[in-house]
Amino acid sequence: MNLILLHADDFLNPTQVRLYGRRREHVLNIHRAAVGDDLRVGLIDGLLGHGRIFCLTDQILEMEVLLDQQPPKPLPVTLLLALPRPKMLRRIIQSVSSLGVKKIHLINSYRVDKSFWSSSLLRPEKLQEQLLLGLEQSCDTILPEIHLQPRFKPFVEDDLPGISAATTAYVAHPGTGVDFPSRLKRPTTLAIGPEGGFIPYEVEKLQNCGFIPISLGERILRVETAVPVLLSRLI
Amino acid sequence: MNLILLHADDFLNPTQVRLYGRRREHVLNIHRAAVGDDLRVGLIDGLLGHGRIFCLTDQILEMEVLLDQQPPKPLPVTLLLALPRPKMLRRIIQSVSSLGVKKIHLINSYRVDKSFWSSSLLRPEKLQEQLLLGLEQSCDTILPEIHLQPRFKPFVEDDLPGISAATTAYVAHPGTGVDFPSRLKRPTTLAIGPEGGFIPYEVEKLQNCGFIPISLGERILRVETAVPVLLSRLI
Repeated sequence: MNLILLHADDFLNPTQVRLYGRRREHVLNIHRAAVGDDLRVGLIDGLLGHGRIFCLTDQILEMEVLLDQQPPKPLPVTLLLALPRPKMLRRIIQSVSSLGVKKIHLINSYRVDKSFWSSSLLRPEKLQEQLLLGLEQSCDTILPEIHLQPRFKPFVEDDLPGISAATTAYVAHPGTGVDFPSRLKRPTTLAIGPEGGFIPYEVEKLQNCGFIPISLGERILRVETAVPVLLSRLI
Repeated sequence: MNLILLHADDFLNPTQVRLYGRRREHVLNIHRAAVGDDLRVGLIDGLLGHGRIFCLTDQILEMEVLLDQQPPKPLPVTLLLALPRPKMLRRIIQSVSSLGVKKIHLINSYRVDKSFWSSSLLRPEKLQEQLLLGLEQSCDTILPEIHLQPRFKPFVEDDLPGISAATTAYVAHPGTGVDFPSRLKRPTTLAIGPEGGFIPYEVEKLQNCGFIPISLGERILRVETAVPVLLSRLI
């Protein structure tokens, strides 16, 4: 936790907050902070700044806060990610959130096991937990949006043209396609398949929607490695 | 397992191999392969090619193999990585191996917990297991070397000048330093610190050894995310 994220209802008044639970414990046990110490804080969907501790007990943490800095710029990307297996999902969502992605669609694909869609980790509050951990890691305040798209065809035919409009759209497809460009600064839509990749029908549907197949060379990477490698091209 | 890795002692004769255990089970249960099927195979530290199954029982897998392709080019990098916590180590080693790094030094740092050095995961056969999983994932055959450097100062003073000679050397240091260049094709040495980063003394020692501090922008990434992001600049 490189940043203590504040919620609107943590505020006692416009400049003072009171925290309980996980955040208080972290400040006490990991930061080993004490009264008078300064911590990096940020308001969810708001500004970053500093908080000076004026009360820290085994129940509460109170800080005087000054929020005066803009959060880092978001990555200019909408990420379509074939739903990863639950074991990987948490970590991938944290990683994606820490990298500055703000628009995420978890999509279906032939190689996504149907059972993944009934994982309790897909509940909004569970996803939000992972997104917040990513923001706390990377010192960002802007909460990403996640949309679940459990039906591939209607999503690609009906919703995707609107989502990818006015962006350059790429689908990562190992072994084929052009080399993925670096230093993309323009709005981008990026589709990343499941372990084993999208099937040819799915790649074709995405191509019909304007997606350009791109490759990272001969190596086939696990999704958890491919995601940061691909997103790094947008940093 | 996108590639079945063969050991020299799997060969019955120059063109036939017999496999047992994990690889046989994987071919049977995950690939769901049968007699007559072709699989991608590669000889450790040798060529890639194909294997045609001519016997598959509940004990053995036998293939006729043809090895005629070069493995993918290694990344031109020597990676110095502050020893990650054991929980993360396996995954990070797999990921680094899958990305094509061939020279790895796991190094000490002030923020590396001393207990990490006594993890059983650092035994050569345990590290090799993770390296092989990375190669099987990415379809590569060249086994990376891992060196353990449990003492920072003597390593940096005595060994590192020889290791980083004739390379451009960078140390990833969040929040300071120049932007990390893309499309590095030249020999590179890259040092990545622990969670929380190298301490100023360590950065200074590395700078004295010619390392250039580089940053990835304002965001602070977990090591498991930072490693593929940084290495992607060399792909």
